Amino acid sequence: MPTDFATALANTAAAVNQMLDDLLPTAAGPEGRVVEAMRYAALDGGKRFRPFLVCAGADIMGVDANNALRTAAAIEMVHCYSLIHDDLPAMDNDDLRRGRPTVHKHWDEATAILAGDALLTRAFEVLAEKATNPIAEIRTTLVADLAKAAGAAGMVGGQMVDLAAPSLGLDVNGLTHLQALKTGALIAFSASAGAILKGDAEARLALHAYGLDLGLAFQVTDDILDVEGLSGEIGKTPGKDKAAGKPTFVSQLGLGGAKTLARSLTERAVGHLDRFADQARLLRQAAVFVLERKS
Amino acid sequence: MPTDFATALANTAAAVNQMLDDLLPTAAGPEGRVVEAMRYAALDGGKRFRPFLVCAGADIMGVDANNALRTAAAIEMVHCYSLIHDDLPAMDNDDLRRGRPTVHKHWDEATAILAGDALLTRAFEVLAEKATNPIAEIRTTLVADLAKAAGAAGMVGGQMVDLAAPSLGLDVNGLTHLQALKTGALIAFSASAGAILKGDAEARLALHAYGLDLGLAFQVTDDILDVEGLSGEIGKTPGKDKAAGKPTFVSQLGLGGAKTLARSLTERAVGHLDRFADQARLLRQAAVFVLERKS
Repeated sequence: MPTDFATALANTAAAVNQMLDDLLPTAAGPEGRVVEAMRYAALDGGKRFRPFLVCAGADIMGVDANNALRTAAAIEMVHCYSLIHDDLPAMDNDDLRRGRPTVHKHWDEATAILAGDALLTRAFEVLAEKATNPIAEIRTTLVADLAKAAGAAGMVGGQMVDLAAPSLGLDVNGLTHLQALKTGALIAFSASAGAILKGDAEARLALHAYGLDLGLAFQVTDDILDVEGLSGEIGKTPGKDKAAGKPTFVSQLGLGGAKTLARSLTERAVGHLDRFADQARLLRQAAVFVLERKS
Repeated sequence: MPTDFATALANTAAAVNQMLDDLLPTAAGPEGRVVEAMRYAALDGGKRFRPFLVCAGADIMGVDANNALRTAAAIEMVHCYSLIHDDLPAMDNDDLRRGRPTVHKHWDEATAILAGDALLTRAFEVLAEKATNPIAEIRTTLVADLAKAAGAAGMVGGQMVDLAAPSLGLDVNGLTHLQALKTGALIAFSASAGAILKGDAEARLALHAYGLDLGLAFQVTDDILDVEGLSGEIGKTPGKDKAAGKPTFVSQLGLGGAKTLARSLTERAVGHLDRFADQARLLRQAAVFVLERKS
């Protein structure tokens, strides 16, 4: 990947880790167990791709960097809560996440459910606080948009469809709907958050559309990696989706068809950035990164 | 209970049920399953005690009734989400709630986890929407205060302590801390929400203090009913807490000591209402209701 993109990704990850560390409570009292689990799940690294999109979008809009980082941290809390709950035995039943025991393996299921609940709750609190943006109307928009992206008409609804997917006989349209809810909505909110922080409605629409296409491309390349990738590189067992009987873009379109779809989605994503000209360089590089990623 | 209190309680319950019905999504598409579970859990009745406190407090403050009902519905969504998650096998493992199968028994654990997540998320969205209050600064205060009451330093933290309670050797102070987090914080927020909607900081403090004392009194009378109540009346098996090895106010203070504590807490709660004179009549009656309730 281009040097400046790699640098920006790494810098955002470091900055958002610090922000998460600052914003999460510290463990104290008999309720400290849930706080430890929140911190374990939220501070465990990862690419921090959603925070990158927030900060790159905010940079285009000329938004205060601290406002952007707080918003990025709130979104990452929501992403991490969803991973904790999705990993539970009643859901995807995963013992490992990024090479470490999942929260319910490290503690127990009750602690994992509660840590997820508390991360989701803290995310909304952070967005509502004055330090996120001086204009209250903008903070309520952030709260409402995050809720839409994360709730029954977004991420939670997508996970519900995903769990039922083996029996739904989803075609490409059905898969697209599933992924638009499960991951697309939060990625699109991430990309558009900078425009919300600026109060620029037109830029918000363009960046949201970019994020939706990029998020879908991310899922298509995930399916491709699930077939082509090596276990060590993608951090999970290749072929897991197929073994679970879940339809994927590869199972529906073949490997060649999925690659064509990923390419056309990233092209369409980048097309939404025309209005920003050179300022959107990092977001264009992010699309290349999604298309060419090996992990 | 006094006729006007009973009428107000019943009227609020009917109005908040209607508001919840309006505010919850309707089931559609393959993600409709989680929406059905949300509606099942949130529209199942109950006393709607928290909404009553919101509406009675809002009435004292002269706040728009629709604003109050939306706030009450959001708080009830949070209460219902907490019941869904607390009932899960990994937590309290309850098969019945108000005489009906719990969400994980009616559907499954995954659906129950997701329905709880989605109710919590929708609550914040409702509070952030303009229809809840025309002043954005007030809406962000509602969001932040609800998050504080519901998160790791509130309800979720309290449930974490409650799960560990059998091994913590809690004394009365420890029990008070547990209950202040687990139920007190959300009840105090409910009582103070009307003052937040009005933007009256002093009234907010007084009503919050009233709610904290009232919430604690509610738990003490719960423990008394757990010993004295009949199964049909309290809707759960009497003696369940004792059987679970959990300390209670009765196990720590004896029945007489617990009754004295409940009385002194309700008196202290009512003392916070002096500034409102006659206008706080319903909230005073609520304290009598808590002290004398048989279910």
